[in-house]
Amino acid sequence: MNDPEYLGYAAGILTTIAFLPQAFKVFRTRQARDISLLWAVTMIAGVFLWLCYGYSRGSVPMIMANSVTLCLLAIILWYKIRFR
Amino acid sequence: MNDPEYLGYAAGILTTIAFLPQAFKVFRTRQARDISLLWAVTMIAGVFLWLCYGYSRGSVPMIMANSVTLCLLAIILWYKIRFR
Repeated sequence: MNDPEYLGYAAGILTTIAFLPQAFKVFRTRQARDISLLWAVTMIAGVFLWLCYGYSRGSVPMIMANSVTLCLLAIILWYKIRFR
Repeated sequence: MNDPEYLGYAAGILTTIAFLPQAFKVFRTRQARDISLLWAVTMIAGVFLWLCYGYSRGSVPMIMANSVTLCLLAIILWYKIRFR
Protein backbone atom coordinates (compact mmCIF):
# COMPACT_ATOMS: atom_id res chain seq x y z
CA MET A 1 0.00 0.00 0.00
CA ASN A 2 3.04 2.33 0.23
CA ASP A 3 3.32 2.59 -3.55
CA PRO A 4 3.51 6.36 -4.31
CA GLU A 5 1.15 5.83 -7.25
CA TYR A 6 -1.69 5.60 -4.70
CA LEU A 7 -0.88 9.22 -3.77
CA GLY A 8 -1.42 10.14 -7.40
CA TYR A 9 -4.70 8.24 -7.65
CA ALA A 10 -6.01 9.83 -4.42
CA ALA A 11 -4.90 13.30 -5.59
CA GLY A 12 -6.50 12.77 -8.99
CA ILE A 13 -9.80 11.62 -7.50
CA LEU A 14 -9.96 14.65 -5.17
CA THR A 15 -9.07 17.35 -7.71
CA THR A 16 -11.41 15.78 -10.27
CA ILE A 17 -14.25 15.46 -7.76
CA ALA A 18 -13.74 19.14 -6.83
CA PHE A 19 -14.64 19.95 -10.45
CA LEU A 20 -17.90 18.02 -10.56
CA PRO A 21 -20.26 20.47 -8.77
CA GLN A 22 -19.25 23.28 -11.12
CA ALA A 23 -19.63 21.02 -14.16
CA PHE A 24 -23.04 19.69 -13.03
CA LYS A 25 -24.26 23.23 -12.34
CA VAL A 26 -23.37 24.19 -15.93
CA PHE A 27 -25.02 21.06 -17.37
CA ARG A 28 -28.16 21.52 -15.24
CA THR A 29 -28.63 25.24 -15.83
CA ARG A 30 -27.29 25.09 -19.40
CA GLN A 31 -25.40 28.32 -18.81
CA ALA A 32 -21.85 29.18 -17.81
CA ARG A 33 -22.14 32.95 -17.41
CA ASP A 34 -20.20 32.97 -14.11
CA ILE A 35 -17.34 31.02 -15.68
CA SER A 36 -14.73 33.14 -17.43
CA LEU A 37 -13.81 32.09 -20.96
CA LEU A 38 -10.18 32.98 -20.23
CA TRP A 39 -10.21 30.71 -17.17
CA ALA A 40 -11.69 27.80 -19.14
CA VAL A 41 -9.22 28.13 -22.02
CA THR A 42 -6.22 28.54 -19.67
CA MET A 43 -7.27 25.50 -17.64
CA ILE A 44 -7.83 23.38 -20.76
CA ALA A 45 -4.38 24.25 -22.06
CA GLY A 46 -2.80 23.61 -18.64
CA VAL A 47 -4.62 20.32 -18.01
CA PHE A 48 -3.78 19.13 -21.54
CA LEU A 49 -0.10 19.83 -20.89
CA TRP A 50 -0.29 18.02 -17.53
CA LEU A 51 -1.78 15.09 -19.47
CA CYS A 52 1.13 15.16 -21.94
CA TYR A 53 3.60 15.51 -19.05
CA GLY A 54 2.00 12.57 -17.23
CA TYR A 55 2.23 10.54 -20.44
CA SER A 56 5.91 11.47 -20.89
CA ARG A 57 6.63 10.32 -17.34
CA GLY A 58 4.48 7.20 -17.60
CA SER A 59 2.27 8.35 -14.74
CA VAL A 60 -1.08 6.56 -14.97
CA PRO A 61 -2.72 8.64 -12.20
CA MET A 62 -1.82 11.87 -14.03
CA ILE A 63 -3.08 10.50 -17.34
CA MET A 64 -6.38 9.32 -15.87
CA ALA A 65 -7.11 12.38 -13.70
CA ASN A 66 -6.22 14.91 -16.37
CA SER A 67 -8.17 13.04 -19.06
CA VAL A 68 -11.37 13.19 -16.99
CA THR A 69 -10.78 16.83 -16.02
CA LEU A 70 -10.08 17.70 -19.66
CA CYS A 71 -13.40 16.16 -20.72
CA LEU A 72 -15.30 18.10 -18.02
CA LEU A 73 -13.57 21.33 -19.01
CA ALA A 74 -14.25 20.74 -22.72
CA ILE A 75 -17.96 20.27 -21.99
CA ILE A 76 -17.99 23.41 -19.79
CA LEU A 77 -16.28 25.37 -22.61
CA TRP A 78 -18.76 24.02 -25.15
CA TYR A 79 -21.68 25.21 -22.96
CA LYS A 80 -19.92 28.53 -22.43
CA ILE A 81 -19.65 29.11 -26.20
CA ARG A 82 -22.98 27.49 -27.21
CA PHE A 83 -25.23 29.14 -24.61
CA ARG A 84 -23.70 32.63 -24.35
CA MET B 1 14.20 22.03 -25.60
CA ASN B 2 12.52 18.59 -25.95
CA ASP B 3 12.99 17.80 -22.25
CA PRO B 4 9.51 16.69 -21.03
CA GLU B 5 10.04 18.69 -17.84
CA TYR B 6 9.27 21.81 -19.89
CA LEU B 7 5.78 20.35 -20.47
CA GLY B 8 5.37 20.19 -16.71
CA TYR B 9 6.60 23.76 -16.18
CA ALA B 10 4.26 25.08 -18.89
CA ALA B 11 1.33 23.09 -17.49
CA GLY B 12 2.08 24.30 -13.97
CA ILE B 13 2.27 27.94 -15.04
CA LEU B 14 -1.07 27.72 -16.89
CA THR B 15 -3.09 25.92 -14.21
CA THR B 16 -1.62 28.19 -11.51
CA ILE B 17 -2.31 31.35 -13.55
CA ALA B 18 -5.90 30.15 -14.06
CA PHE B 19 -6.27 30.35 -10.27
CA LEU B 20 -5.04 33.92 -9.87
CA PRO B 21 -8.19 35.89 -10.92
CA GLN B 22 -10.31 33.96 -8.43
CA ALA B 23 -7.70 34.43 -5.69
CA PHE B 24 -7.29 38.17 -6.39
CA LYS B 25 -11.06 38.65 -6.41
CA VAL B 26 -11.23 37.10 -2.93
CA PHE B 27 -8.30 39.21 -1.65
CA ARG B 28 -9.73 42.43 -3.16
CA THR B 29 -13.32 41.95 -2.03
CA ARG B 30 -12.35 40.22 1.22
CA GLN B 31 -15.19 37.76 0.75
CA ALA B 32 -15.44 34.26 -0.68
CA ARG B 33 -19.21 33.76 -0.56
CA ASP B 34 -19.36 32.30 -4.09
CA ILE B 35 -16.64 29.78 -3.27
CA SER B 36 -17.87 26.54 -1.73
CA LEU B 37 -16.10 25.43 1.46
CA LEU B 38 -16.33 21.82 0.27
CA TRP B 39 -14.64 22.76 -3.02
CA ALA B 40 -11.82 24.59 -1.23
CA VAL B 41 -11.18 21.75 1.23
CA THR B 42 -11.34 19.07 -1.51
CA MET B 43 -8.94 21.03 -3.71
CA ILE B 44 -6.50 21.65 -0.85
CA ALA B 45 -6.42 17.94 -0.04
CA GLY B 46 -6.04 17.02 -3.71
CA VAL B 47 -3.34 19.58 -4.47
CA PHE B 48 -1.45 18.58 -1.32
CA LEU B 49 -1.48 14.95 -2.46
CA TRP B 50 -0.33 15.99 -5.95
CA LEU B 51 2.51 17.83 -4.19
CA CYS B 52 3.44 14.66 -2.26
CA TYR B 53 3.13 12.60 -5.43
CA GLY B 54 5.34 15.04 -7.33
CA TYR B 55 7.88 14.82 -4.50
CA SER B 56 7.78 11.01 -4.55
CA ARG B 57 8.47 11.05 -8.30
CA GLY B 58 11.08 13.79 -8.09
CA SER B 59 9.06 16.06 -10.38
CA VAL B 60 10.14 19.66 -9.83
CA PRO B 61 7.34 21.14 -12.00
CA MET B 62 4.72 19.31 -9.94
CA ILE B 63 6.33 20.39 -6.66
CA MET B 64 6.55 24.04 -7.73
CA ALA B 65 3.10 24.35 -9.31
CA ASN B 66 1.27 22.56 -6.52
CA SER B 67 3.13 24.51 -3.82
CA VAL B 68 2.01 27.84 -5.29
CA THR B 69 -1.55 26.58 -5.86
CA LEU B 70 -1.65 25.22 -2.31
CA CYS B 71 -0.66 28.64 -0.92
CA LEU B 72 -3.36 30.39 -2.99
CA LEU B 73 -5.98 27.87 -1.89
CA ALA B 74 -4.94 28.15 1.76
CA ILE B 75 -5.36 31.93 1.61
CA ILE B 76 -8.76 31.56 -0.12
CA LEU B 77 -9.85 29.10 2.58
CA TRP B 78 -8.64 31.47 5.31
CA TYR B 79 -10.72 34.31 3.80
CA LYS B 80 -13.66 31.93 3.43
CA ILE B 81 -13.57 31.04 7.14
CA ARG B 82 -12.52 34.47 8.45
CA PHE B 83 -14.99 36.61 6.51
CA ARG B 84 -18.09 34.37 6.45
